[in-house]
Amino acid sequence: MDIAFAEAEAAAARGEVPVGAVVTGPDGRVLARAGNRTLEDRDPTAHAEMLVIRHAAAALGSERLIGCDLYVTLEPCPMCAGAISFARIRRLYYGADDPKGGGVAHGARVFERPTCHHAPEVYGGLDAARASSLLKGFFRSRRDG
Amino acid sequence: MDIAFAEAEAAAARGEVPVGAVVTGPDGRVLARAGNRTLEDRDPTAHAEMLVIRHAAAALGSERLIGCDLYVTLEPCPMCAGAISFARIRRLYYGADDPKGGGVAHGARVFERPTCHHAPEVYGGLDAARASSLLKGFFRSRRDG
Repeated sequence: MDIAFAEAEAAAARGEVPVGAVVTGPDGRVLARAGNRTLEDRDPTAHAEMLVIRHAAAALGSERLIGCDLYVTLEPCPMCAGAISFARIRRLYYGADDPKGGGVAHGARVFERPTCHHAPEVYGGLDAARASSLLKGFFRSRRDG
Repeated sequence: MDIAFAEAEAAAARGEVPVGAVVTGPDGRVLARAGNRTLEDRDPTAHAEMLVIRHAAAALGSERLIGCDLYVTLEPCPMCAGAISFARIRRLYYGADDPKGGGVAHGARVFERPTCHHAPEVYGGLDAARASSLLKGFFRSRRDG
């Protein structure tokens, strides 16, 4: 989770919404790490979770990340939750809840639908205060900026 | 929609689930066209809709596809519906309903949630019989091997 936070902080430094993510393999090794890059890449799909899933799949040469876990500093949105399901992520660990845009514990609740064919084990609220204060600080600085 | 079908047929010929998509600009010009490539690219996020959104954003140099429309042969899943929302797609036209995996008219119903900050106008059921028969034919041929 510390690596995910480092990626979130690096994203903030690039002017991106500070969200960072990591995928680890079945042996616990880091397969991919990334921060949000939607502005820099001019790609609306370039959320941290999407990037680490794509990079880990490329690293493993498989579109299914069997036995892999994903760590992210914020509750994933419906897009990322969908990708997590397709990638067959084993466990999802996330930081702050996102009542405004989340798709796991809020809104679309993607993993709870009968149309969701694979749901990871979900562990939310990890270092939630740290994740939340990182986001709040970022938006405050943009407002005051 | 004919181009989306051609892309779906090309995807089937590559052994992919036959789904095709197109993004058109505000002037109606085709900005991007793609079929599903999850197996070929070994990328669980490489659905046709994701690819055309990413390609159109790259073509326009913007992560927001203001005034752009998306055509796809199958009801988008929650991942793609999320991406369509982030990309600010104006109108979504889709072919067959997908009761098993859809995220627009079924399951997560991403656009209907208060956590969805932009919803396109949605027009479903276009050439639904054609889209549905393409998918059924594909899965039948895989079963019969």
